[in-house]
Amino acid sequence: MNFLEEKILMDGTIKQGNILKIDSFLNHQIDIDIMRQIAYELKRRFRDVEVNKVLTIESSGIAIATMLGNLYDVPVVFAKKGESANVTDDKYVSQAYSFTHKRMNNVFVSQPYLHASDKVLIVDDFLADGQASLALMDLVHQAGAQVAGIGIAVEKGWQRGGKILREMGCRLESIAIIDEMDWETQTIRFRQQPERKLTKTNLNMK
Amino acid sequence: MNFLEEKILMDGTIKQGNILKIDSFLNHQIDIDIMRQIAYELKRRFRDVEVNKVLTIESSGIAIATMLGNLYDVPVVFAKKGESANVTDDKYVSQAYSFTHKRMNNVFVSQPYLHASDKVLIVDDFLADGQASLALMDLVHQAGAQVAGIGIAVEKGWQRGGKILREMGCRLESIAIIDEMDWETQTIRFRQQPERKLTKTNLNMK
Repeated sequence: MNFLEEKILMDGTIKQGNILKIDSFLNHQIDIDIMRQIAYELKRRFRDVEVNKVLTIESSGIAIATMLGNLYDVPVVFAKKGESANVTDDKYVSQAYSFTHKRMNNVFVSQPYLHASDKVLIVDDFLADGQASLALMDLVHQAGAQVAGIGIAVEKGWQRGGKILREMGCRLESIAIIDEMDWETQTIRFRQQPERKLTKTNLNMK
Repeated sequence: MNFLEEKILMDGTIKQGNILKIDSFLNHQIDIDIMRQIAYELKRRFRDVEVNKVLTIESSGIAIATMLGNLYDVPVVFAKKGESANVTDDKYVSQAYSFTHKRMNNVFVSQPYLHASDKVLIVDDFLADGQASLALMDLVHQAGAQVAGIGIAVEKGWQRGGKILREMGCRLESIAIIDEMDWETQTIRFRQQPERKLTKTNLNMK
């Protein structure tokens, strides 16, 4: 069990309807030490990959993205959400359905902040149905840039986002993948994740 | 001229209607080195003040708050905005008018994340009319906690927020205060800020 799985067990609460509440340390209050460890762990998992930009979506991905940008010493970009994106205004625009707000949101990045030469690590706090990650990938591709990988703190393994992204061949790393939760017994089953074996050859590719 | 004033002159653009665009480094793309310096400078300016929590409001304050929380090694809380705040649901709720969205927003923090014992440093990227800072102060006071100070990256000195907060006796520190901008000549006049003199006695108060 890794540090984040332990933290989820210790401080998370399961609410009726398969809802995991971990906003005491991840996405409302931020436990800065956990955030630091998330950044270190994502950088470690992507150690064979070149990254020159970190991309996330407002709001709750910004803390992780900032810590990672600090660690990599590369610029961070956060895509904005809103109905107000004006496509003519030098923006890359995509769409994502927000289950929280029950509407399609435009997701956009000003064009000067994504270049064709960028190797972009996309990060977010949660992965559920994958709408946000797919929209961010779309923005990166619109800019002619490369997606270096997708780094997630907590993946809801019973939702389809992880499956879609892995089947597309994305390099997706989720620090904790929850496969099952039970409200009555307050238990959580995490997916076993095999350690990704790296060879010297892999690492030298960097 | 400090690092942030220089950066604004170098990379900012003034648009017609007294609009300063600095989203290439502050609030859309994030220049991580500038962000680090902002955090160091705010911590330095508040060196005589005890801080055990950093509070901001989503979205664009989160990067600065995260860097400061990392530096202080204290928890960060970001207040959420929305029309959806349910007052019965264990939240402190305040209101702020959003000039961007032209509506009143609820601003809220879950009650467990602000304690009466907290000494809260409020931070944000911009200070304009002060609506966000006043709402955050209100939340801190609702919790019976103390506002240690308000730390801002860029203050629009011609708007009323700074004046209101200073007249209330707030300890407000803005790294760059813009008093005037001129679109035609693309010039910016920053307010001279006297260095706050600290004595050993002041510092020992910490």
